[in-house]
Amino acid sequence: MKFCSQCGASVSLRVPEGDNLPRHVCDACGTIHYLNPKIVAGCILEWQDRILLCRRAIEPRYGFWTLPAGFMENDESAMAAAAREALEEARAVGENLKLYGVYSLIHVSQVYLMFRGELKDGHASPGHESLEVGLYAEQEIPWDQIAFTVVHETLRQYFVERRSGVFHTHLGDIIRDGNHQFRIERYY
Amino acid sequence: MKFCSQCGASVSLRVPEGDNLPRHVCDACGTIHYLNPKIVAGCILEWQDRILLCRRAIEPRYGFWTLPAGFMENDESAMAAAAREALEEARAVGENLKLYGVYSLIHVSQVYLMFRGELKDGHASPGHESLEVGLYAEQEIPWDQIAFTVVHETLRQYFVERRSGVFHTHLGDIIRDGNHQFRIERYY
Repeated sequence: MKFCSQCGASVSLRVPEGDNLPRHVCDACGTIHYLNPKIVAGCILEWQDRILLCRRAIEPRYGFWTLPAGFMENDESAMAAAAREALEEARAVGENLKLYGVYSLIHVSQVYLMFRGELKDGHASPGHESLEVGLYAEQEIPWDQIAFTVVHETLRQYFVERRSGVFHTHLGDIIRDGNHQFRIERYY
Repeated sequence: MKFCSQCGASVSLRVPEGDNLPRHVCDACGTIHYLNPKIVAGCILEWQDRILLCRRAIEPRYGFWTLPAGFMENDESAMAAAAREALEEARAVGENLKLYGVYSLIHVSQVYLMFRGELKDGHASPGHESLEVGLYAEQEIPWDQIAFTVVHETLRQYFVERRSGVFHTHLGDIIRDGNHQFRIERYY
């Protein structure tokens, strides 16, 4: 951020009075511009023991498989955002969505709100951001071609719990270490 | 948003190619500026059957009571944000935090991530944004002076579940109706 979105003047990075973190403050009108984490909403949709996956037609991770997920918009609920992403990326209707995991991706300042639910009628086809979509049984999941650690870990947990018959809501962080490797720190 | 934060030129509200919602797009450099919901992280902290509340020293709802809560910052986890807010607003240390509720406030494009946990040693005192803080038993809660519907509903649910001995993680939306009254739509 270099310019004030309110008046167009330049901004400086400094700690406003009464604050304890540097913010982008307008040199002319004094507006303080806060930067906050973004929410990514997504979902695991199941139909006849199989899970809906999308192969990404966009960067990052073009060609890799993922769950339907994307940035939550203003003026919508978290659950509606997850359902909308399934519709946009896989022309899929999600039903009976439940919150399944909340994961903070500290290195990119994102919070993932992952839901689980049912894929209505088993219908899915690629949206603009997907090369293809597919319904995968557990043993067919392309584990080494999953786009993101948060998706990998959400799926892995899902299958563990599905076997046990009891789903919980999970909380964790995705950590990027010094070698740019990612791991999950799961609180529960 | 009137000016591009990257180059300082004016922005226009229009639907970018491949998108389906109007965005602020720079007339000069073409940067698309997305506006997304903000996360508010907060917590119920309990000590010896009593709950920590803060009386607001800031608008909105100056003088009303609330749970420690505030905007999540970049570069932190959701749980760390909730703990930080308790520290800042009530000089209180929260322990054993669990995710308790996720509430979308559609009318202001905010998502509340509310945690529950223990107040370490029962210690609390007002931070800069609080007039006073207090530990309240259920029958002492100033229900008609609670600042926000989301806080009121989180507290109410908490006491119901505490009686039952079993806590779940909840999902809901806070809806503002045509008369500017607020109500909760609780999915579970």
